[in-house]
Formats: sequence, C-alpha cells, structure tokens
Amino acid sequence: MTTLASLETPSLILDREKLEQNAARMTARFAASGLRLRPHMKSAKSIDVARIALAGNFGGITVSTLKEAEYFADHGIDDITYAVSLVPEKLPRVARLMRRGVRIGGITDSLTMAEAISRRAVAEGVVVDLMIELDSGERRGGLTAGSASVVDLGRALHDLPGTRLAGVLTHAGNSYLCRSLEALREVAEQERRAAVTAAAQLRAAGLPCEVVSVGSTPTATHGLSHADLTEMRCGVYMFGDVFQHEIGSHGLEDIAVSVLATVIGHRPDLDAALIDAGGLALSKDRSTGAPGLAEDIGFGMVMDESGARRIGRVRVGHVYQEHGMLVSDGAFPFDQLPVGARVRVLPNHVCMTAAMYDGYRVLDPADPRRVGDFWPRVNGW
Amino acid sequence: MTTLASLETPSLILDREKLEQNAARMTARFAASGLRLRPHMKSAKSIDVARIALAGNFGGITVSTLKEAEYFADHGIDDITYAVSLVPEKLPRVARLMRRGVRIGGITDSLTMAEAISRRAVAEGVVVDLMIELDSGERRGGLTAGSASVVDLGRALHDLPGTRLAGVLTHAGNSYLCRSLEALREVAEQERRAAVTAAAQLRAAGLPCEVVSVGSTPTATHGLSHADLTEMRCGVYMFGDVFQHEIGSHGLEDIAVSVLATVIGHRPDLDAALIDAGGLALSKDRSTGAPGLAEDIGFGMVMDESGARRIGRVRVGHVYQEHGMLVSDGAFPFDQLPVGARVRVLPNHVCMTAAMYDGYRVLDPADPRRVGDFWPRVNGW
Repeated sequence: MTTLASLETPSLILDREKLEQNAARMTARFAASGLRLRPHMKSAKSIDVARIALAGNFGGITVSTLKEAEYFADHGIDDITYAVSLVPEKLPRVARLMRRGVRIGGITDSLTMAEAISRRAVAEGVVVDLMIELDSGERRGGLTAGSASVVDLGRALHDLPGTRLAGVLTHAGNSYLCRSLEALREVAEQERRAAVTAAAQLRAAGLPCEVVSVGSTPTATHGLSHADLTEMRCGVYMFGDVFQHEIGSHGLEDIAVSVLATVIGHRPDLDAALIDAGGLALSKDRSTGAPGLAEDIGFGMVMDESGARRIGRVRVGHVYQEHGMLVSDGAFPFDQLPVGARVRVLPNHVCMTAAMYDGYRVLDPADPRRVGDFWPRVNGW
Repeated sequence: MTTLASLETPSLILDREKLEQNAARMTARFAASGLRLRPHMKSAKSIDVARIALAGNFGGITVSTLKEAEYFADHGIDDITYAVSLVPEKLPRVARLMRRGVRIGGITDSLTMAEAISRRAVAEGVVVDLMIELDSGERRGGLTAGSASVVDLGRALHDLPGTRLAGVLTHAGNSYLCRSLEALREVAEQERRAAVTAAAQLRAAGLPCEVVSVGSTPTATHGLSHADLTEMRCGVYMFGDVFQHEIGSHGLEDIAVSVLATVIGHRPDLDAALIDAGGLALSKDRSTGAPGLAEDIGFGMVMDESGARRIGRVRVGHVYQEHGMLVSDGAFPFDQLPVGARVRVLPNHVCMTAAMYDGYRVLDPADPRRVGDFWPRVNGW
C-alpha cells in the first residue's frame, strides 16, 4: 500500500474529495441558470479530472492546446473549444479532429488570420467554427466590443469559405487584479457586457451569434448576472491555489493540489531549511507577490504532511532547480520540521505547478493518508 | 522535410553546431589540467547531448534527479554523481543502480541523514559512496569548510556501515551574483579553496578524500587556478542562455537553445504583439531581472526566425499560460513582426525553459533552416 509517508518526493498530490467538492459547487452554481458550464481543462489536463468536472454538465470542455484537444477526444469528449488564437499551421490537426467527429471551435481577433485560416481550411476540405475573441479589460488579445472591427471580422468569418461565425468569446483575466468582492463583481459585469454587446452588434448586422461565452474562476464565482450569456468557461476552480484563495475565489482548505516534499537540510545560521522541491517541482510563479495581496508566500505555502495545518508562517522563500529554501517570519520552527520530515506545499498558481508533473497521485477519500490511483496528465503542445 | 517554417509552434529548437562548439570549448579548457570534467546533465537531460558533452572526457556525469540517473544508466553511462542531498527513501533506487554495475555517488551535509542512509543502505545490502556537501558562499546547503563538523561528518561516513566517504563537493551558485570578471575569479577561488580546505581537513584526520569536486558554469569558465581539485562539474555551458550571457559566461551568439513561436496577434493600442509561447513554453524564470545586469529581458529575448538577429529591442514582457506578450523600447516594430511571423525566443534560464518540453528539435548543421532529429529528454523525478 502506498501512503503519503512512503511516497517518493517530490510528488504531485491530488485530494479527490476536495476536487469533487469544488467541481460540484461550480456545477451547482450554474445548474438552473440556462448557462452551459464548459470547464477549462488547461489546469488539470487529465481525463479523470474532466469526468468529475463534467458531472451534471452538458459535456463540452475548453482547452488551451491542441494536444489537450486530441487527448480528450481520444477519451471520448467530442465538443471542444480551443481558446487560444488559431493559426493556419494548426489547421491540419483541427481538421483531423473534425473528421473524427469532434466538434471543435477556435477563436481569432484578426482579419489577416481569418483569411489565412480560410485558405487553409478550404485546402483541408473543412469548415471551421470560429468565435471572435474580445478584450473585456484584460488587455491581452481580442477586439473591443462595440467597435466596427467586431462586425467586419464577423462578416468575414461568415462570408469566407472554410470558416463559420460561431459566436463571441472573452476571458476576464483582469479579475486577477481585483482585491475586493465589489471589484470582482464589476469585472464580471464588464466581461458579460462585452460579450453581450458584441453579440448584439453581430445580430444587428444580420449575422449569427450562437455562442456568447465568458469565463474566469473569479468572475464565474462572483458574477451577479449572466443575462444573455450562453456559456461559462473556467478551470482553476477545480484545484484552487494560494493566489486564488488570496483574491477570494475559495477558502484555503479548498485547495485540492499540493506538492509532497522532504526536508533535506537545516541551515540554523540562515534561519532556513531546505526541501527537495525547487523551481522544477513548484514552478517559478510569483503570483502571490502581486501588489495588494495579504501575504507574499514566495513559491508556495508550507503545510504539514496531512495538508491540513500550516506550519507557523513558513513558506518557500527561494527556489533553485531542485532545492527549495523554507523561510519563516520570526524564528524558524526547526523542531516542527526535522531533517527527513514530509511537508505539503500549496502552490501559488496551480496551473504552472501541475504542468511540471506527468500525473497526480490521488488521495483516497476513505483514508487521506493512503495514495491510491495515479492519474496521468497531458503536457506539451 | 521539416523546416523551421513548417514546424508547429511552440517548439524547442537546438542548434547542434553551437552545442558542439560550447562543449568542445569547455572540454578543451580542462583537457591538459588533470581535472576530470564531469558534465552536469540537469539542463540537457538528453543522452544525445550527453554524448557530445562527454566527447574527449572520462565519461562520468552529474545529475540532479534519480530519474536522470536511471535514464543515463539505461543508455550505458556507468559513473554518475547525484548532486542533491540524498534521502534514505531514495536508497532502493540507488541500490538498484549499483546492482546493475553503475557507480553512483551521492552527497550529504547532515549527520542525521548519514545515519538514516546508513541504516537503509545496510537493509539494501549496499555500501553507498557519499561526498560531504560544502557551502562555499552560495548559502544553500552544505557545511563550512574548516569547521569541525566537516571532520565529524567525514568520520561518520567513513565509520558507519553502508556508507563510504568518497570526498567533498561544492557548487558556487553565488557566481550567478557576480557582475565582473574580477568578482567571478574571486568566487571561483573561494569555491576551490573551500573544497581543498575540507579535503585537507579530512586527510589530516586520517580520513580518505578521493574526490575534490567543484563546479558552476561561470567559475568553470573563468577560474584561474584548479590546484588540488580532482573534478569539475558544470552544465549550462552546453546550451547557454541570456542570463549566462549577461554575467559573462559566453557570447549571445553561443546560445544553442531557443523557442520557436508564432506571432498570433497585434495590439497597436498597447504597442505590443502576442506570440503562442507563454509561461508554459518559456517558464516563468525572471533571472535577467536581477540587480546589476545590463538589460531585463522579461521572459525571453526575441530574435528573427533564423535566430541570428535580434528584432529591435523586443522582448517577452509578460506571459500568460499559453500567451506571451512582446514589448519593445520605443515604437513596436509591427512591420518586422506581422501576424503569422515566426520568431525565436532566447531563454533567460535554459534549464527551466527546456524542462517544459519532451525533447529538442535539432537544427541540421548543414542547413540551419532544416529541422532533422528529435532528441527526447527525461523530465520528472
């Protein structure tokens, strides 16, 4: 029997019970709304996790790479949105999925790209569903709702051979900058309004707009209105992380993924200890160092082996490739962290941390010290 | 025929000619010194790269994970140093390698660990080679050369059943803080002196000290004396990166690894463009933002498709999971970076970037637009 105590470190631990609770909570939130929850699998990249997230929903997912799309299609998921600007070079893979019977939609914000995709789709003999990407305040990709370019691009996608205008899509990544519930609600409303406004523009121009899609974990959690939307995409809620906790997406006790590590050395002269989880095991994401958060936890928050109790104010203060350095506010609690002790590190940004592993070691809900299944994940592109 | 122009993005590109030059330069540096070069494979994690790095050397390597050790042993390498503090839980894997005829050495800086390793080694029926880890100024793991604890630990390793005192080892990670050739030479000398001092202590106490091992790419490149050392470990020199260039380890033109990416959008209102390589394709390493460097290049330096010419002062200013945002000093050169264009991103810290991929797409030295071999790499633990 594999237990937390016998597992080699570093290992990526998944608390199945918390995952199920987090997924059920989001599913319940939209169950009666008429909005379809299309979970974003970019954090989990695992069919076992997808099955839990899809329970009670319509069955469609969102992905961030075509490798994810192909993997999930191999496991029977046949309604997929690829939510990163499509480039023509990826059309052969998209077409292969379509010929297998998978309904796959892409996004674009560029007339140049739309024309290049059209040419390539014609060459592949397919008609690709495309949504117009909108910028609702994140200032990354996307057109501004209300601008003439939305209708221009919409008409092109509608008229060009090889493309079909499927709708509009936006992601309020700027919700990550919010530091209050009020601000989160306002960003959620901006996200909704951008999508609804662009959809109305298209329809007023006589163009179709079947899908009106929004989504980020903070706005999905806190948005007050979903009027005139058709679809919600969010993903990190399944696992949670310390950053999402700090901006109010969930409680600290809801974080379902952590890294099991071993204390490999003491440095009393530095008031620090070393663990065998560094930049590769934890990622180098520094999101909890963002302005306005309650606590900068460095590269991860240090809990006891059970994951239930934080040890003092210990955090991973520095990382090297395979070493993490534990530091604390005040005197370092060496007595609670002897050499050889096991800790659980809660990640700053779970999408980046999980990406460093080929799978999850899953805690048995019946006995949380017991490590049962291994759930593989799909990395790369 | 696969070319840079037809390859899907993001892809990890390896310029074999530069790799061979970098490897040959380091090998030549130590060829007549009596010092054995034991290349550190933690950056490359590839047998194809190892074969190039080992040409002209004695054949031993350094690794940072046991997964690397097992992989390289499977490919015939039988002299391996595992240069991260050994924990008893890893003894079964170490013992399996030893029973296969692999000479594998570990390190420790802790009497508690030495005793626990001894017990576990006895249970496994093996005698493990251990070196004493020294801190020569990095302030990570390791004992201070000259302190009584070096002899105490050395005697324990010598006397305990199941362990053999093999020598001393240190890594001048603090060389990364140097901003001048003079400072680098001083740190290299500190590194050397720490190892030599501890070796002398052990011998004066009647203990053996066969291996006197040092190594980091900057100190290996610039150190003036190697007197009384037996072994040099360094690794990142094979590939190089922008950070190593900025601290003077090599020229910008020596960087052998880059990420091929596609421009997927323009944001004239933000003076920025988007590429399809983000935090997962590039890592979130911010090492070029360290104090005292000439230029903070964000998450990577942007070159043209050939990798030979930097485009203006363009760099990856922000990363999201799958998006990178290109920014520039002054007006953004949209004309040089049309939507659909290919770029090559030089990494800040190549060890972290390469870790995001399952292998290298290798440029053909005869035709640098042609992508020939795929060289797999071993990730995880």
